[in-house]
Amino acid sequence: MADLLWPGDERAGSLVSDGALLAAMVQVEQAWIDALASEGVAPSTADLGGLVGEDDVHAIAVGAEGGGNPVLGLVALLRERLGDASAASWLHRGLTSQDVVDTALVLCVRDVLDRVQAELRSQVDSLVRLAGAHRGSLMVGRTLAQHAVPTTFGLVAAIWLDGLVDAAEEVARVRAGLPAQLGGAAGTLAASTELARLRGLADPEAASLLLVRTTAGALGLADTLPWHVRRTPITRIGDALVTCTDAWGHLATDVVMLCRPEVGELAEPVAEGRGGSSTMPHKQNPVLSVLVRRAAIAAPALAATLHTASALAVDQRPDGAWHAEWDTLRTLARRTVVAASQTTELLAGLHVDHERMRRNLDAAGTDVLAERDTMRRLHPSAVDETAAADEADDEPVSYLGAAPLFVDAALTRARTYLESA
Amino acid sequence: MADLLWPGDERAGSLVSDGALLAAMVQVEQAWIDALASEGVAPSTADLGGLVGEDDVHAIAVGAEGGGNPVLGLVALLRERLGDASAASWLHRGLTSQDVVDTALVLCVRDVLDRVQAELRSQVDSLVRLAGAHRGSLMVGRTLAQHAVPTTFGLVAAIWLDGLVDAAEEVARVRAGLPAQLGGAAGTLAASTELARLRGLADPEAASLLLVRTTAGALGLADTLPWHVRRTPITRIGDALVTCTDAWGHLATDVVMLCRPEVGELAEPVAEGRGGSSTMPHKQNPVLSVLVRRAAIAAPALAATLHTASALAVDQRPDGAWHAEWDTLRTLARRTVVAASQTTELLAGLHVDHERMRRNLDAAGTDVLAERDTMRRLHPSAVDETAAADEADDEPVSYLGAAPLFVDAALTRARTYLESA
Amino acid sequence: MADLLWPGDERAGSLVSDGALLAAMVQVEQAWIDALASEGVAPSTADLGGLVGEDDVHAIAVGAEGGGNPVLGLVALLRERLGDASAASWLHRGLTSQDVVDTALVLCVRDVLDRVQAELRSQVDSLVRLAGAHRGSLMVGRTLAQHAVPTTFGLVAAIWLDGLVDAAEEVARVRAGLPAQLGGAAGTLAASTELARLRGLADPEAASLLLVRTTAGALGLADTLPWHVRRTPITRIGDALVTCTDAWGHLATDVVMLCRPEVGELAEPVAEGRGGSSTMPHKQNPVLSVLVRRAAIAAPALAATLHTASALAVDQRPDGAWHAEWDTLRTLARRTVVAASQTTELLAGLHVDHERMRRNLDAAGTDVLAERDTMRRLHPSAVDETAAADEADDEPVSYLGAAPLFVDAALTRARTYLESA
Amino acid sequence: MADLLWPGDERAGSLVSDGALLAAMVQVEQAWIDALASEGVAPSTADLGGLVGEDDVHAIAVGAEGGGNPVLGLVALLRERLGDASAASWLHRGLTSQDVVDTALVLCVRDVLDRVQAELRSQVDSLVRLAGAHRGSLMVGRTLAQHAVPTTFGLVAAIWLDGLVDAAEEVARVRAGLPAQLGGAAGTLAASTELARLRGLADPEAASLLLVRTTAGALGLADTLPWHVRRTPITRIGDALVTCTDAWGHLATDVVMLCRPEVGELAEPVAEGRGGSSTMPHKQNPVLSVLVRRAAIAAPALAATLHTASALAVDQRPDGAWHAEWDTLRTLARRTVVAASQTTELLAGLHVDHERMRRNLDAAGTDVLAERDTMRRLHPSAVDETAAADEADDEPVSYLGAAPLFVDAALTRARTYLESA
Repeated sequence: MADLLWPGDERAGSLVSDGALLAAMVQVEQAWIDALASEGVAPSTADLGGLVGEDDVHAIAVGAEGGGNPVLGLVALLRERLGDASAASWLHRGLTSQDVVDTALVLCVRDVLDRVQAELRSQVDSLVRLAGAHRGSLMVGRTLAQHAVPTTFGLVAAIWLDGLVDAAEEVARVRAGLPAQLGGAAGTLAASTELARLRGLADPEAASLLLVRTTAGALGLADTLPWHVRRTPITRIGDALVTCTDAWGHLATDVVMLCRPEVGELAEPVAEGRGGSSTMPHKQNPVLSVLVRRAAIAAPALAATLHTASALAVDQRPDGAWHAEWDTLRTLARRTVVAASQTTELLAGLHVDHERMRRNLDAAGTDVLAERDTMRRLHPSAVDETAAADEADDEPVSYLGAAPLFVDAALTRARTYLESA
Repeated sequence: MADLLWPGDERAGSLVSDGALLAAMVQVEQAWIDALASEGVAPSTADLGGLVGEDDVHAIAVGAEGGGNPVLGLVALLRERLGDASAASWLHRGLTSQDVVDTALVLCVRDVLDRVQAELRSQVDSLVRLAGAHRGSLMVGRTLAQHAVPTTFGLVAAIWLDGLVDAAEEVARVRAGLPAQLGGAAGTLAASTELARLRGLADPEAASLLLVRTTAGALGLADTLPWHVRRTPITRIGDALVTCTDAWGHLATDVVMLCRPEVGELAEPVAEGRGGSSTMPHKQNPVLSVLVRRAAIAAPALAATLHTASALAVDQRPDGAWHAEWDTLRTLARRTVVAASQTTELLAGLHVDHERMRRNLDAAGTDVLAERDTMRRLHPSAVDETAAADEADDEPVSYLGAAPLFVDAALTRARTYLESA
Repeated sequence: MADLLWPGDERAGSLVSDGALLAAMVQVEQAWIDALASEGVAPSTADLGGLVGEDDVHAIAVGAEGGGNPVLGLVALLRERLGDASAASWLHRGLTSQDVVDTALVLCVRDVLDRVQAELRSQVDSLVRLAGAHRGSLMVGRTLAQHAVPTTFGLVAAIWLDGLVDAAEEVARVRAGLPAQLGGAAGTLAASTELARLRGLADPEAASLLLVRTTAGALGLADTLPWHVRRTPITRIGDALVTCTDAWGHLATDVVMLCRPEVGELAEPVAEGRGGSSTMPHKQNPVLSVLVRRAAIAAPALAATLHTASALAVDQRPDGAWHAEWDTLRTLARRTVVAASQTTELLAGLHVDHERMRRNLDAAGTDVLAERDTMRRLHPSAVDETAAADEADDEPVSYLGAAPLFVDAALTRARTYLESA
Repeated sequence: MADLLWPGDERAGSLVSDGALLAAMVQVEQAWIDALASEGVAPSTADLGGLVGEDDVHAIAVGAEGGGNPVLGLVALLRERLGDASAASWLHRGLTSQDVVDTALVLCVRDVLDRVQAELRSQVDSLVRLAGAHRGSLMVGRTLAQHAVPTTFGLVAAIWLDGLVDAAEEVARVRAGLPAQLGGAAGTLAASTELARLRGLADPEAASLLLVRTTAGALGLADTLPWHVRRTPITRIGDALVTCTDAWGHLATDVVMLCRPEVGELAEPVAEGRGGSSTMPHKQNPVLSVLVRRAAIAAPALAATLHTASALAVDQRPDGAWHAEWDTLRTLARRTVVAASQTTELLAGLHVDHERMRRNLDAAGTDVLAERDTMRRLHPSAVDETAAADEADDEPVSYLGAAPLFVDAALTRARTYLESA
């Protein structure tokens, strides 16, 4: 896949693509019919492997409008191709289309979260290195876009790092609790319970729950109550993803600013064909940061739509709100992966011009020590003469406060994360 | 095209597809090089017809990340395939990539707006028919989801109609003013002015403006100042589109409610494979309305992203905000077309059960005349005995107020619109 | 009013305040009862002047929850205080609470739009002056945050100007069409029609429409079909307001960037207590721009909520969506006024350091002429020797393209606007 | 407080009001100066109790525009009123205004979260009761607004319950980690470190960290790295709050639907003056649900703005994005409390008409067993004759699947939550 209007889209490969979704839907059907068989509800299972593929996506997609979702068409196609009429008749029995779509989306999102986690680890690695290397690299601290007091690039990187570890916590938490959706037509498992009863199983209701547990287990997902109209599993995913794009957007905004020629403290990694202009050969556009910012600007609204949809769920299955989630979640997920990958590349090769940082700090002059002078002026009695004498040089390095300790704290947190991740 | 996760997507055909975008970008380059030649800036034009196509989309999309947009790759490919080195060297001269992307998007959006206008006309036709036919079809008016006073389905349809005409006004206004984007690297037309100067044209600046006018004219677009960082043309499109999805969402919400079995006053058009369920043969799901609601739930956030991007434009071309617009606008546009088409089908075949409406009204009993009784009780002195006697039957039909006149007013407005549209 | 968490809020004065809303609701009731009397439906009108005021806001607000809106409580209070039982009994007859809330909101919004229009005119005045004065002030053009080609501050100001005139067009359009909402319980005017009938009027339905026309006319609002569930009048307001905050956000983002010490091309107007820091006396924070950006960041989501609410309207009056609009619209409106006023102050006193602009351009060196060199290199045959010789000095001023003409075009458009505004 | 345009606002009392914010800001200053004294950085502390109050809000709010936030004005006022010049000079030393605003907001939000937690517990209590009592109350299950299969009201309540426990988990998690913001001008604690140095403390950097720990501890907040530009603490709050309004919006949407006269299965609690209409005495509007839906419709956009602001943080303190957060968060927080309280009242008194549920189910006829018949027809060989005979009555109760077990599971989870909450 590659989207002409979302440069870098191919970084997400086939994650949450139509083909991946189709495969995941088949995976759900497979796990369910396997469970039907293993729990003695169906006489035997069926092998759905290879029955449908990319070539079927178009027809299933077009057919999806009739029933409002792609499951009916998929099931019909699988039954037709199974050959075995008995197996065909057992396929999908007890499930509703929402079970299949929701669980397949969750499976695809799991791959996304795994990829995002890997990218985050790599980014944290890069920032641990940068924050450590630049623990003492002086630069001017800016607030409300004006010069304030000295800081270090190490601390800048440490704060970025802290934001990444925050985001990683959100992703890990969501990743750990991804649930299967298995409830049947109205979330009661009535059909599978009936099938169990028809087969003479002793406790059909319990058998139905066992089907859910077995299927969820086979898929590696959590076993919860049906969430057809309880959409927290979806909004949690959205919130975690947008927390990631926030963290990347924040650092990319910094990078774009610090790459401005008038500032010149950072430069994006140089790569063949990256950031160039056909007619202005001098230009080296911070394209990665620009594209990451793009994702950060677009993501919050997508996550908000998931919440709106959640709030509008009604009855035993929603009347439009659910349908609004699918592509919104997919778009958010793919864009997050693209931004993840671009941020990884950005941080891995970020060029830090610590000499320019120092020159900019020097150019800021005594302004950046004005706060210190205020401290001294206001509290003359507190001035310990010896202390004052010690730093007669009036260098900005003497006014860094706890910046190095903050760097250390961020590094400690990051290393703990890396060990556990 | 057909999107597995947005059933009905194929209704939008290739509108704003990657292929359509590519073709539109070529169209922009063609119009520009034609203008360069016709205004005497370039020695001759070049024929870009057939040089690139769908097969090139993938490579151009993948290559788009380097420069942050697909234009560099497209231009390189066009130059390579042109054969004629001189023509190749004139291609794209004076333009910047944002000129090409923005103008191409506008061209694609124009097709979208034309389609939406056609659908709106068709919908208005349907509703003129329905409002007229049911001008006297009594039903219970509901407020805060409770029975209030009598109304007619004609008035319900008339209010839907009024909303559609509102939306059509927005679309027509935006459609009429779509601008070309032609400004060069930083919105000064410096390169094309230089080219005109190099060619010895008498007034190179004026020649540059003429290039813009000629190109915009050839494309059928308005000729305005460059809008690289003035994004009103984009937000206006977004606002017009979401005004459409609002109007459709509103009526679809009504339809879903009135199709509930307990109400049963409306039914969606019956079509082969539409609204069915594999295991519950009795079910006739209001799928069109559900899918239209879906679009209405998802659209506002997309339009909001366009505004956020607009507000964040900076410098002579934005550093991420612009990039966030493209796919957001495309997604919004395609979904609007899909919802347009689904609403047209819905309204064309909407089944109105006026007898059930009447039965529901009767079942509501005297409650729906409670307001009238309040009027009478509170103003005994005002009761003209003759008037009261005239309507001794106490039928709801006697308490419709100006509903029929409102229907007439809506029909008049709609017919005026149809005549001018 | 002054909101601790929205610095500058007092600039909006009492616009759309609780008190203003209450007064507007009384104004609506007054206009309606006047119309009832003048059209012969009620025996006489009543004078509601001075009956309720700021002191009543709290009690009415607390009481509003019972009925879901503040009208029931207000009407009860007005009736109680009117003294005249007959007049009291005619008060509000024929209206529903949504009529009063919607029309009152529209009246308050009208004051907001008038204020915004005045601010826009003042801003356009300032920018006409700035764009004219700096038509030739050279500065470096920046794209993707990097130096591109030369431009002028005059053109920067002209593009801001163009955005303001765009916004003014939206505001003027909405301002011109603000409608009254007068429909009665379910949008049929049944009660007022009944009252007209009880009074023996010849054509009670027509009398009802006349009541609407008279009331709307007295309030200076347009007379349309009831829009209880057709919410275009509200979304249009929201879209116009956010178009304003977009335009201001864009220019404020530029100002913040150009005020950075490393760039130093602009400075906010200096005012006592503005932009200072208690401990860093050197700091001059661009507070106005920062606060304007704040509004631009927060506004799109509010406008989006109005669209969501519009799409969810149902029945004859909505079941929650309507209620979500009121404070959302109020908040958006007040914030827009605050940002309007701050932008006016910002532009009126904006300090342009054209010498620094020139120095930054010089510092950018020959890079900013790289595009020109590309033009020359690629088209040697096109180089007219005389032309080249004419500009042997290689000054950036020779590579401004049509920038001055664009400034002129923006000024012409702005002056036309000022004449008509 | 009571907001005319947000009925029920007074339920939030003074939570996050201007007065509460002011008090919280003073609390932060108090804790900090106490720490300065206890750690030996300042000679003594000062008692800020009673120095400022509600009466000062207006002046401080008006003055807030100059510096862009209310802290400068507050500190000036506190110093002026302290009388003791030495104490005055130590006040606020080492802090930046963002430290005070952020920490004060967090303190106010803590009260909000505590209140929300209490409401959630109460709601869970109600739903545990309802789900238990109606474990066997049959009703028709509805999907895509159409009748599907039987379910129970117990399961409906259980799913609502599950959503509430989800929301409670989010709130508890955020509540547990609320951090203080203490970083000084640019997040380096330079000023407080300098003060410690001037006092001759052995390890000034460590002393600064100790100040943070002591202050955070005194305020009962977590001690983290400064988060001036790492806004996860704010977005997490927003996401948790909107997860609550989602859960309430979902159940309120169900209630509004089930209260429709044609359905009539639920009724809101009756209360004096609640849900009435002045002219339609029969009406009993589901006002609580309507107002809860209102909050759910408006909340997602507010939470999205917090994410947008997070992504746009830049430098050492943001240039507008931060300022956009304050009132957005406050508005979201207060509305969440109001919706919390309304939902509690709604659930505590919700009237369940199980007989009407049964009648509606009966009216749905055999349709709701169509799925079962499909199961039987498709798998004749699986039909165990005895099993079939057992349920010859063909009652819907026989087709409830695992609904009762799901109710039990939800109750177990809810009880575990109640024990730990």
